[in-house]
Amino acid sequence: MNVHGERIEALRQKMNEAGIGLYYVPMSDCHASEYVAEHFRCNAFLTGFTGSAGHLVVTGSGAWFFTDGRYFIQAANQLSGSGIELMKMGEPGVPEVDDFIAQKMSEVLKENDSLAFGFDGNVVNTKAAKGFIDKIEKNIYKKVTVKSDRDFAGEMWTDRPAQNFTPLWSMDIKYTGETTQSKLDRIRAELKKFNRGEDNYLYLLNSLDDIAWTFNIRAADVNNNPVAFAYAAIMSDKAILFTYPGMVSDELKAALAAEGVSVGEYSMKSLCIENDGQPVLMDESRIGYNIYRFYQNNGAAIVNVKNPSTPMKGEKNETELACAKAALVRDSAVLIRFMYWLKKKSAEAGPGAVMKNDDGTDMTELSVDTYLTGLRKEDPMFFSLSFNTIAAYGENAALMHYMATPEKHSKISAKGMLLVDSGGQYYDGTTDITRTFVLGELTEDEIKSFTLTAASMLRLLNTKFIYGCSGEILDIMAREPMWKEGLDYKCGTGHGIGHVLNVHEGPHNIRWRIGPDGPTAVLETGMVVSNEPGVYKEGLYGIRTENEMFVKPYMSTPDGQFMQFENMTFIPIDLDGIDKKYLSQDDVKMLNEYHRQVFETVSPLLDEEVKAWLKEYTREI
Amino acid sequence: MNVHGERIEALRQKMNEAGIGLYYVPMSDCHASEYVAEHFRCNAFLTGFTGSAGHLVVTGSGAWFFTDGRYFIQAANQLSGSGIELMKMGEPGVPEVDDFIAQKMSEVLKENDSLAFGFDGNVVNTKAAKGFIDKIEKNIYKKVTVKSDRDFAGEMWTDRPAQNFTPLWSMDIKYTGETTQSKLDRIRAELKKFNRGEDNYLYLLNSLDDIAWTFNIRAADVNNNPVAFAYAAIMSDKAILFTYPGMVSDELKAALAAEGVSVGEYSMKSLCIENDGQPVLMDESRIGYNIYRFYQNNGAAIVNVKNPSTPMKGEKNETELACAKAALVRDSAVLIRFMYWLKKKSAEAGPGAVMKNDDGTDMTELSVDTYLTGLRKEDPMFFSLSFNTIAAYGENAALMHYMATPEKHSKISAKGMLLVDSGGQYYDGTTDITRTFVLGELTEDEIKSFTLTAASMLRLLNTKFIYGCSGEILDIMAREPMWKEGLDYKCGTGHGIGHVLNVHEGPHNIRWRIGPDGPTAVLETGMVVSNEPGVYKEGLYGIRTENEMFVKPYMSTPDGQFMQFENMTFIPIDLDGIDKKYLSQDDVKMLNEYHRQVFETVSPLLDEEVKAWLKEYTREI
Repeated sequence: MNVHGERIEALRQKMNEAGIGLYYVPMSDCHASEYVAEHFRCNAFLTGFTGSAGHLVVTGSGAWFFTDGRYFIQAANQLSGSGIELMKMGEPGVPEVDDFIAQKMSEVLKENDSLAFGFDGNVVNTKAAKGFIDKIEKNIYKKVTVKSDRDFAGEMWTDRPAQNFTPLWSMDIKYTGETTQSKLDRIRAELKKFNRGEDNYLYLLNSLDDIAWTFNIRAADVNNNPVAFAYAAIMSDKAILFTYPGMVSDELKAALAAEGVSVGEYSMKSLCIENDGQPVLMDESRIGYNIYRFYQNNGAAIVNVKNPSTPMKGEKNETELACAKAALVRDSAVLIRFMYWLKKKSAEAGPGAVMKNDDGTDMTELSVDTYLTGLRKEDPMFFSLSFNTIAAYGENAALMHYMATPEKHSKISAKGMLLVDSGGQYYDGTTDITRTFVLGELTEDEIKSFTLTAASMLRLLNTKFIYGCSGEILDIMAREPMWKEGLDYKCGTGHGIGHVLNVHEGPHNIRWRIGPDGPTAVLETGMVVSNEPGVYKEGLYGIRTENEMFVKPYMSTPDGQFMQFENMTFIPIDLDGIDKKYLSQDDVKMLNEYHRQVFETVSPLLDEEVKAWLKEYTREI
Repeated sequence: MNVHGERIEALRQKMNEAGIGLYYVPMSDCHASEYVAEHFRCNAFLTGFTGSAGHLVVTGSGAWFFTDGRYFIQAANQLSGSGIELMKMGEPGVPEVDDFIAQKMSEVLKENDSLAFGFDGNVVNTKAAKGFIDKIEKNIYKKVTVKSDRDFAGEMWTDRPAQNFTPLWSMDIKYTGETTQSKLDRIRAELKKFNRGEDNYLYLLNSLDDIAWTFNIRAADVNNNPVAFAYAAIMSDKAILFTYPGMVSDELKAALAAEGVSVGEYSMKSLCIENDGQPVLMDESRIGYNIYRFYQNNGAAIVNVKNPSTPMKGEKNETELACAKAALVRDSAVLIRFMYWLKKKSAEAGPGAVMKNDDGTDMTELSVDTYLTGLRKEDPMFFSLSFNTIAAYGENAALMHYMATPEKHSKISAKGMLLVDSGGQYYDGTTDITRTFVLGELTEDEIKSFTLTAASMLRLLNTKFIYGCSGEILDIMAREPMWKEGLDYKCGTGHGIGHVLNVHEGPHNIRWRIGPDGPTAVLETGMVVSNEPGVYKEGLYGIRTENEMFVKPYMSTPDGQFMQFENMTFIPIDLDGIDKKYLSQDDVKMLNEYHRQVFETVSPLLDEEVKAWLKEYTREI
């Protein structure tokens, strides 16, 4: 048995002492974050798994690790020798995590009905915890004992990394378009509605991008996400921002105070606030179970709400849109210069030969990332990537979450295609774009797939829809041309994008699968969303074409308010991969119109050589 | 105050005596039926409203009636003088019924906190009742007293009509393709899964079409729906069908007994069965609250399930599909003969003149219904309409639920359009089709709308989709061409259709709005569904083109299983209303291919004169 197997044994010892029959360890932090910082990776400490998603379930007699298709191979390797059984989520016969926990817990209770269900209630959100408990109780037809006060992994983890705290900075009104005071007023108006029209509430907020947006603050506590670890409590007459002491300057503290915000000290108990009977409002899908239990034990009326800031943050105001549009035009110019450089290097190498960097070294997936990031860094407004660049050449691009490493990456030759998915954090906007570049000869199947991908992206971009649609309703507009050919990409078509904030944000989304909580948010004016269909053929190639766009009104008639998208990304779709015979007449019209806009919008930012090249690559077909 | 106002006052008196502060009366029966028989229309008895949908809420100081847009005008007239306030559902500022009840109940309790929330728990389903109670308790932050044992309207209603019971008949295996025993086996396999893999359950079933399907029985207890009033209880080793004594022949009783089914006596308490501790399985969205409470008071473990028969019934087997296809081809021939007759009569009348029936009388919306029904009756397999025919001429067709009456109907002239939505119950299938017929000159806007409607229907019919999609995902394929023009029809695009059963059935549906319970069922092989987009312009015209189709596999690739529709309705789309300039190249191809199939499929059933005419009306454009 390896070190991880020993850790599971030590965990069992602790479970035994605490009277816990089944213990659950998620891959999550106290903030329901998408990216979980090292400090919170107890799951990884126990299992040895280094991926981003997984669930560990341990009983006296077994240990199981659930992860999804992205990680089957990696998890099988990393779990080897630990005695932990890999559960491949989504594979036939593999139960859902909650059903599995309910099943195993009922087996545990058949052996010994005094045992408890255990987990660390600081990092399991209330909704998830209640869901597990509910499933167990539905299975055993009676109440189960729950112990959520122990972080067993944390207790064992002697060299646990500390949480990362960095100085907070304030976003200027010229980028946000709205003061914290105004945002708090709007949030309070919503909270009052949730509270029977009354003002005597205590509202708890733990999600980092909601906090960053509400208080117009940013930091660098999490890679690529410009947020600070923080909690917040909002009442009708005051608000408290709980952050790490010393990371808030006196100037920022004074500015916050002027907007009615005081600063408190960050800890996992920040939100366990003495209250005298007022209803406590929280988003149970985000707030940790222990915080919920604190108020439940105090006899408070708990009202489950959706964080009002999430849709407000999603619906960009005119200032934010103007800033984001400017950032995206500059970012498009960066990508066009990159594309021009690639095409030049491909021609210089000659058909099939390895392409060279400016310094004569071989071009690789890593070196193109370096080059592209270098171009972005020339912009004084740039301050970080918005996510780690995916540069995937040839068959590597068929792996949707491929990540080149110093140990394992490909050289790039003047043949086939290179997929580059990248984005920047600028002081005026966050970008996320993908283009697949044709570097040499393509097969007929590659041309067909490339052309279909372009049609898919353009059809969705040009879709008109009645107000009230969520992204689930629109998704088929991108996918149907692919489905006709028996093709499908195994990911969503689009996601919300933050404003100088997380590159993935809600409450909206474009995908066809409707989750257990129902559809994502209605597409509202000002929502920015990506549009990224693709074709992925294992062992052969991967193609993705991704633009950003935002929602705006189309027309109002007696039949309703109709909506449309405005395009925000202005980079050619590589005509070297397009064959008109795979397009309808309407598709050709849309492609030509798109390329006309690309040239018109970005050419003023380019030097003459690149501009002349762009003219050719945005030609009418 | 009129008689209905007096009834509300009498109701208040009874509420007062019973300590009830707010009383709710739905428009529903004990079977969660779509069509509510007269016996169950307590709501109508109290209010005077004769429409099919509405909710009555009464407190000591007010009475409110909620209904939807179809009935705003009718309800305003019929409620006049009763003192009941009309609440227009869906209008700005009008709350949802449950929110309104919660709000009013909390006001009632502020005055007198000993009062109860009351309703007749026999006709309010468990899910609805729990929903109301939950909303109230979330609003008052404490428990509410519930009294569900009183049917106040029934107590007052001295001349209440009895329930209608008709003889049951058995569906032959050549139409059903599956025995009751086999259906019960499949249902029991599902029930066992819901019950932790154990056999000791009691399962309760009250929905009439589920019962008809499961036990292969039909009757005529409800207009147009060939079902019997019945309840059923299914255990692992036996099943009881509760029906009205005397309506089951000895032969049928013996046949049921041979499949393990005994017959019990129908009453509202049929499902309140003595049980010795086994878990009770029920679909809470269908089973009345009083039945749920009976088991809850007995301390039974209650498991909320979806009726397993509903998806089984929705997924037609090969026998059912073959039968339904045959019925639809014959029904298509009926409609083609009807269309031929209309066109002839229009030509005979001359432009703009009133058209004449065969007997020389003026043609009206009622007389075309009579003529069409007469044609259907010539088929020896026909036994009833599947719903009341909608024949709507000119601007009447803009009202989606228009129903001509002897008092109020239009004559039909050789101009504009006639919309006919009709269907038959045949011993081998149930049909539902709509065509809009061009009777004379159209405006350019009418031609555009007519052509768009055809394109919408054909685009959805030809959509390919990945397995797993529900109708919500597909709906936009029909609607987007309309949305581009600022048009929208305010109803679903399609609904499931029973097999010699209800013309509306679940579990699937095609519509874009996702309800609070999430999407409708995944579209499975064998599901029959209507496809009925339309354009409705108030005061001008209404157009609807409706085919039936069923789901079947398309292709299987490494990316998944893909699905498609097969068309089942073979009636021309009136080419007198089509202008190619409003169609894409693909639309034209689909229309021509559709018309080719219509001629090929139905022409063998027609005489030479109609066949020659059909050739012209299915010509390539």
